[in-house]
Amino acid sequence: MSIYRTNTCGELRLSDAGKQVTLSGWLQKGRDLGGMTFIDLRDRYGITQLAFNMESNAALCEQARKLGREFVLKISGTVKERENKNLQIATGEIEIVVGELVVLNEAKTPPFTIEDNTDGGDDLRMKYRYLDLRRTPVRNNIMLRHKMAQQTRAYLDAQDFTEVETPVLIKSTPEGARDFVVPSRMNPGQFYALPQSPQTFKQLLMVAGLDRYYQIVKCFRDEDLRADRQPEFTQIDCEMSFVEQEDVLNMFEGLVKHLFKNVKGLDMQSVPRMTYADAMKYYGSDKPDIRFDMKFVELNATENNVVSGKNFKVFDDAELVVAINAKGCAGYTRKQLDELTDFVKRPQVGATGLVYARVNEDASIKSSADKFYDETALQAWAKACGAEANDLILILAGQADKIRKAMNELRLEMGTRMGLRDKDTYSCLWVLDFPLLEFNEEENRYFAMHHPFTSPKPEDVELLDKGELGSVRANAYDLVINGVEVGGGSVRIFNKDLQAKMFGILGFTPEQAQSQFGFLMNAFEFGAPPHAGIAFGFDRLCSLFGGENSIRDFIAFPKNNSGRDVMIDGPSEIDQKQLDELHIALKK
Amino acid sequence: MSIYRTNTCGELRLSDAGKQVTLSGWLQKGRDLGGMTFIDLRDRYGITQLAFNMESNAALCEQARKLGREFVLKISGTVKERENKNLQIATGEIEIVVGELVVLNEAKTPPFTIEDNTDGGDDLRMKYRYLDLRRTPVRNNIMLRHKMAQQTRAYLDAQDFTEVETPVLIKSTPEGARDFVVPSRMNPGQFYALPQSPQTFKQLLMVAGLDRYYQIVKCFRDEDLRADRQPEFTQIDCEMSFVEQEDVLNMFEGLVKHLFKNVKGLDMQSVPRMTYADAMKYYGSDKPDIRFDMKFVELNATENNVVSGKNFKVFDDAELVVAINAKGCAGYTRKQLDELTDFVKRPQVGATGLVYARVNEDASIKSSADKFYDETALQAWAKACGAEANDLILILAGQADKIRKAMNELRLEMGTRMGLRDKDTYSCLWVLDFPLLEFNEEENRYFAMHHPFTSPKPEDVELLDKGELGSVRANAYDLVINGVEVGGGSVRIFNKDLQAKMFGILGFTPEQAQSQFGFLMNAFEFGAPPHAGIAFGFDRLCSLFGGENSIRDFIAFPKNNSGRDVMIDGPSEIDQKQLDELHIALKK
Repeated sequence: MSIYRTNTCGELRLSDAGKQVTLSGWLQKGRDLGGMTFIDLRDRYGITQLAFNMESNAALCEQARKLGREFVLKISGTVKERENKNLQIATGEIEIVVGELVVLNEAKTPPFTIEDNTDGGDDLRMKYRYLDLRRTPVRNNIMLRHKMAQQTRAYLDAQDFTEVETPVLIKSTPEGARDFVVPSRMNPGQFYALPQSPQTFKQLLMVAGLDRYYQIVKCFRDEDLRADRQPEFTQIDCEMSFVEQEDVLNMFEGLVKHLFKNVKGLDMQSVPRMTYADAMKYYGSDKPDIRFDMKFVELNATENNVVSGKNFKVFDDAELVVAINAKGCAGYTRKQLDELTDFVKRPQVGATGLVYARVNEDASIKSSADKFYDETALQAWAKACGAEANDLILILAGQADKIRKAMNELRLEMGTRMGLRDKDTYSCLWVLDFPLLEFNEEENRYFAMHHPFTSPKPEDVELLDKGELGSVRANAYDLVINGVEVGGGSVRIFNKDLQAKMFGILGFTPEQAQSQFGFLMNAFEFGAPPHAGIAFGFDRLCSLFGGENSIRDFIAFPKNNSGRDVMIDGPSEIDQKQLDELHIALKK
Repeated sequence: MSIYRTNTCGELRLSDAGKQVTLSGWLQKGRDLGGMTFIDLRDRYGITQLAFNMESNAALCEQARKLGREFVLKISGTVKERENKNLQIATGEIEIVVGELVVLNEAKTPPFTIEDNTDGGDDLRMKYRYLDLRRTPVRNNIMLRHKMAQQTRAYLDAQDFTEVETPVLIKSTPEGARDFVVPSRMNPGQFYALPQSPQTFKQLLMVAGLDRYYQIVKCFRDEDLRADRQPEFTQIDCEMSFVEQEDVLNMFEGLVKHLFKNVKGLDMQSVPRMTYADAMKYYGSDKPDIRFDMKFVELNATENNVVSGKNFKVFDDAELVVAINAKGCAGYTRKQLDELTDFVKRPQVGATGLVYARVNEDASIKSSADKFYDETALQAWAKACGAEANDLILILAGQADKIRKAMNELRLEMGTRMGLRDKDTYSCLWVLDFPLLEFNEEENRYFAMHHPFTSPKPEDVELLDKGELGSVRANAYDLVINGVEVGGGSVRIFNKDLQAKMFGILGFTPEQAQSQFGFLMNAFEFGAPPHAGIAFGFDRLCSLFGGENSIRDFIAFPKNNSGRDVMIDGPSEIDQKQLDELHIALKK
């Protein structure tokens, strides 16, 4: 037993009454009630009330009154049943009548309050992250992350996956995002790169016969940081041999169910599947939030065109006229509809306007376009949309890709307004059959949508040969939860010739392919097994399970949007001597 | 069930006879016996024999005969009891009578044989590491490492430790070894550093109240690589709050016992403890191998000087005359003794000569120095050394520090020669009370022996004030197994003033201390708890448990002595565009 404590601050109960105990922790707050002084003592495990009595021990009581918030204390005393019980906390039925008090360390007044709801802004909290982490909600996030990692390992270990550490100091490859690089002192003029993912190494582990690999691993991407990106992030990285897509989907559906069950206590149903084509058609997104329905309805579809030819130019000229049905929203006011119009016109959404049609209580319909459409025409809209009395149909029109994207935003906005996106409800979805390649207008060439190692669907390989590159579907899959892509992977190419062909399509000369991925292509010559894998964004998965939008509070020491750690004030300048040793110079 | 297999190659038993199965794996070897052809099919889980019969299926048998080593096959067939059972392997009682064979991938002939004992040299094995990893002993090392990590987590999780990921992109600090650095694109002229250890972050987690932290984490050191060092290596990194040294020793003795029990099936006794002073006095090393005794005996000790004053100048002039007793080695030949003399004269050992004394069967003594020492004098040596009939006393003399180091080498050499260093015997030891500071002659100043955050023993703090810096002992401890330091740690300073004093002693100006460790010193102002920690070299620990000397084969993708990964051929040159974006230039 430590000299510092016999028990933690979260441990003592009424059944411990009468025991002599020693506790250590931080002074959360004190209350001075004249004859009595109470202190809440806090550690990671909970809070215990300390009692000091002016009558029985005036000197100690006086000492206690002088202590400040966040002082580190060690106390000894007797566990006693409380008079005013606090049933909100686990230790709320007892207090410690303190007989001995040692101040282990003093504390300056913290720059923000160490409470669940703090008065500290983001910048201050990040600068004093070690104080921010004392707050229960932040600490709980870090503990949740630990539990997520534990349960991930428990599941994968039980499935015979081997955790293998892959190297952090690797080689730079121009494909994909920007690498962080590390000058090599021992190899002048050469650089290591930090891995964007262990992709090639995990494939080599499959060639090596490891069969099932995983790793919870730091990855690095030197990108301009958007709101919720970090230059270093963590993946659950997995790969399996002798499997098809179906095997991978089942295995990792199992992981997700295991996590929901063991971390959140939720029984998940089996995860529905949707093709990329359907996701784009019905949700305008490759990561649809299916906590709510509200699917897209194409009003100018060839097989059921209910809008064209009525002289409404906006619809007649549109490549796509698409509607959603906001159930029960017919009562939206003029003001609310104006808000929605403003919403879709925002540059980030990009529509030019919004047409609506309300289905009244009596089933009659009132639309902003009823100059062009009579009641019969409008009833055809309602029928197409499955709209009934009190529903509100919202319609966007224009260039198909652009309008799908805009309607996706509007659908999500309506979902939020209608309270259909509860953070404690979880809807998982597999999105399948992604395109293998996507065309980049700027560079006038195709890029791998996933990465160059993703295999085409066997039935689409002939399209590859015919040059119909945009139509080739990949054996690639994403796992989406609540509209957030939390994981993605693919069945890999394991044939050297097909891999070489892919590099060619992606614009690599054979020499470039050899110099950058030679080790992988060589490895494929020595008996590569069929293999497939997946990687999950662990930070994002944790934030989803924690019911929050930002990943930052699920990372112990995150960086800000300029890639700085404001607590340690890094990155920083280094000595000239260091630069010299590394054979580099700063550019003026 | 996958289309590729119903079972693994390590799974089928006699009780499965008659079953229709599908297996996939690599062709380990084939044997052609005229009417029959046999193939050993290998995967991670084992080897299964495949049988092809010329009589019943000539075409298939012919096909099988053409397959090369390391081809990837999928076969279907019937499990059958073998005629010639191989009881060495788990599947040795059955074979598969193959009905269907698919070649999933061909393979070039590997550059070395994929057998337990390979003909591949180190360089070739590293270049084709993905083939080397197919070999059972190497794969077993990687699996052992996985199990070590699993069991480490199981123990620490059960002890309420929280695994927290600390950042990889941090800030460079000149103290200690050389940092690897990463130029920041977004912060021109500034650099991240890769952590040599998460030391300051784990201390901040204690300030944050996390109470018990661990992480199995990659660390980085840009040192000139000695034989068995890697630029990136893995630590089990731990820290605890509200503890003294005793608590830490008990906790991690528990970890070591847990690992021996659950990984090796060994019940370890409680770990003995030795002070640094005793380790140096009796073993000439701060990491003594105590699998065997053979302690140093100082023959010119003030209290029992059995060598001085006999006109033997070598001993009379020596600061230290030190002996070991090699039990039962009196029979060593002239040649063997010459070998030992040559051994101690090697520059790495550094003694000028070796004196011996054999205790004969009849208890008389024959020494190489008996010109100076009569039988009575020699009997006093034997008594001091506890030497009996048939023992061999080996003596070195000279400057104390140098001779202790040399005798340590000789003792280990004798231990090896005498078969006392069995790799399957494990002796653990805590070495305690390390000096806080060590003097560096070159820089003419004291350096922290452990690191600047290590606390002095409370009873030695006054020596600090008196300026007797070399005599101050630290609350620092190392765990040594079989003469290898596998872990080390300390009770930390948690008082801001003492920490500032330490930085002063180590030659930091207050400004330097503030600029480099300001965040930690600031953190100490807000209520730091008493805390202590330890870190284990995970690669080394795995190699010890695997019974091998080199850590390299316990790392999936190691680097060579120039810090190169010869498989991926990294580090490598990067584009001018990348250099420009990073605001750096190569130095000519």
